[in-house]
Amino acid sequence: MEIIVKKFGGTSVSDLDHIQNAALRVKEAFEDGVRPVVVVSAMAGVTDQLLGGLKVKTLGADLRENDVVAATGEQMSAGIFALVLQGLGLKARSMMGWQVPVITSDRAGAAEIREIPPENLLKSLKAGEIPVIAGFQGVTDQGRITTLGRGGSDISAVAIAATLKAKRCDIYTDVPGIYTTDPNIVSKARKLDSISYQEALELAAVGAKILHPRAIALAVRFGVTIQVLTSYENRPGTMIMNAKDMKDERIVSGIACSDNEAKVSILGIRDEPGTVAAIFKPLADADISVDMIVQDVSKEDGLTDVTFTVDKDNLDQTLALIEKTKAATDFENLVSDRNVIKLTVVGLGMAGRAGVAQKMFTALGELGINIQAISASDIKISVLVKEVHQKDALKALHSAYGLDKR
Amino acid sequence: MEIIVKKFGGTSVSDLDHIQNAALRVKEAFEDGVRPVVVVSAMAGVTDQLLGGLKVKTLGADLRENDVVAATGEQMSAGIFALVLQGLGLKARSMMGWQVPVITSDRAGAAEIREIPPENLLKSLKAGEIPVIAGFQGVTDQGRITTLGRGGSDISAVAIAATLKAKRCDIYTDVPGIYTTDPNIVSKARKLDSISYQEALELAAVGAKILHPRAIALAVRFGVTIQVLTSYENRPGTMIMNAKDMKDERIVSGIACSDNEAKVSILGIRDEPGTVAAIFKPLADADISVDMIVQDVSKEDGLTDVTFTVDKDNLDQTLALIEKTKAATDFENLVSDRNVIKLTVVGLGMAGRAGVAQKMFTALGELGINIQAISASDIKISVLVKEVHQKDALKALHSAYGLDKR
Repeated sequence: MEIIVKKFGGTSVSDLDHIQNAALRVKEAFEDGVRPVVVVSAMAGVTDQLLGGLKVKTLGADLRENDVVAATGEQMSAGIFALVLQGLGLKARSMMGWQVPVITSDRAGAAEIREIPPENLLKSLKAGEIPVIAGFQGVTDQGRITTLGRGGSDISAVAIAATLKAKRCDIYTDVPGIYTTDPNIVSKARKLDSISYQEALELAAVGAKILHPRAIALAVRFGVTIQVLTSYENRPGTMIMNAKDMKDERIVSGIACSDNEAKVSILGIRDEPGTVAAIFKPLADADISVDMIVQDVSKEDGLTDVTFTVDKDNLDQTLALIEKTKAATDFENLVSDRNVIKLTVVGLGMAGRAGVAQKMFTALGELGINIQAISASDIKISVLVKEVHQKDALKALHSAYGLDKR
Repeated sequence: MEIIVKKFGGTSVSDLDHIQNAALRVKEAFEDGVRPVVVVSAMAGVTDQLLGGLKVKTLGADLRENDVVAATGEQMSAGIFALVLQGLGLKARSMMGWQVPVITSDRAGAAEIREIPPENLLKSLKAGEIPVIAGFQGVTDQGRITTLGRGGSDISAVAIAATLKAKRCDIYTDVPGIYTTDPNIVSKARKLDSISYQEALELAAVGAKILHPRAIALAVRFGVTIQVLTSYENRPGTMIMNAKDMKDERIVSGIACSDNEAKVSILGIRDEPGTVAAIFKPLADADISVDMIVQDVSKEDGLTDVTFTVDKDNLDQTLALIEKTKAATDFENLVSDRNVIKLTVVGLGMAGRAGVAQKMFTALGELGINIQAISASDIKISVLVKEVHQKDALKALHSAYGLDKR
């Protein structure tokens, strides 16, 4: 019995037409001899529409009851999806988190999956049914409803693929797969046939909207191969898998572009031990994460400049917190810039290889694009540049690393 | 531990303001030393809004999946109601049908309650919580979600009151109780302090929108006292109870008025054995119920007229079915009238008492109102009159039976 988990989320279950279309993908798989297991998200907008008007969050602090309300979205789409599959002549039945059961911790709103006993699912499959599982939700061992938090349905799907030892977990989105870079910006962007878990994690972390890093991490742990693909047509997407199982060797796999960050520069600050720490401590206390820190070489007057990035959402709070340190740190000026983007080149083949960063600096330098900050790990390099350079910079890097469509 | 089940439905949970208001009623009871157990319906309109747009019924014949979708409405309102109670400083928790559990038959869409083990509810009460139960839904012994069909939440509430041996089951509606007749038509209508189960059943059956006959029948069986009252203010409503426990003696309790019926007359039909049966058989086969049958005395030509009523919804089908019998029954003419109403006088004290019907005929006769058909049982008499007479007839009967407000 070759099982493939198929997860449909957001726009691919946003209305009945989209669900019909998603159900066709399941039918094709079934007719190919695969035993599909479906996982669904809430219909995009439906839960928000209901809860938005109610502003439930302002009422109660009991996240367990919020979970009860939130879990209705997936219950509704699971029931409807099962009905649509039946309309296509297939045997299907919905299963809520408590029916599977997806046993979780009792941390409401952000529960972690503890165990998914496979018996009920296997029984349903043996009865010739296609189980349609409400994603995002689970149940505690005390029988209370929980939800998994952000990325929840992706996590449900990967966890169910793991417990069923499924051949693959297909994650259907509204794009055909993972691209070398954003095809809306760079027309020569190519869809990748495959990408390693590590690369997918880096790309997900820097804003390429693929799937939630928690879902990828779970796939790594249980060795679940993920396919990211579109529900709009029947063709292969991008496999996320173990690097050792991948065919092609390449240095760079993709270039992500994030516009979530803002740059903060503290100018004319004393270059003494403890000064920079005095600035970053209140940010850490406020749970604001700081990225891409650059400190200039100290000038003759003993002063230096410090530059870093924070999430745009946190910029105002960051500036206010730093202003409060002025009495202690005595900096000359505080400036910020929202019009920046972070370009991140990702590739397993970069690890331990010389010249990869140099290629980036050369390509951007030839265009006269100034690099405002840099950060790097084994398999990625990120640079911060002005937002106006987005398209030119992405195109140049895409060519420089040999990623252009042939 | 004095338990009172409090059921809020339809408009009393239609939005957050209404739910806040309903929750106040629960708080007042709690502060009076009562242990309330809440049962809620879906927020009026919410489920319809979602499902109406989807037209799920046209998709699948599997009522079990329709039940999964439909059950989300009560899940949502139970979660929200619990949050609102918490906002008032009370301990509350929602419970779905499967969590109580409300064990039902597996007849999807119209399941019958088999058993409600009280242990989980009692445990919740002992923990100082107010359980907020999603009405209308249950679970089979196989763990599938079911719904109870029309009147479902009322039935849930009465069944839960029975299993908990509750002192009472309060059914909150948008009217303050059960009236001697419709106060929108007759200004002298009075709210009744109490009414017997049998009277409530008769009134419910003839269109006084109180609560579902199935719920009343269940209350009779388990001896549950029901109170019908409004959630808008804190004051007593109408008790539905055993006749022997009622204080006041009266002949007539109330007069219901139904505009659901249409009159059908078959004119000039042979007055022979079997002719009338030949007309009614196809109606019975089509599951159309026939009420208030009147057959005129046979005329000299051996012909007679037969008049009866059917639900307005069934009128067109009824006429078509009768037309088909024309070859066999050879009637002269078939006429129908939608502009009729049925007035029903209900009272336990009518049983075996002479003159009650006569009072009705006299009161209507004095106004020159023609009675088109009559039907009666031990505790009620119904008459069919032209719709234009509705207000005059109701006022006259209300006075004649001594029901006017003093």
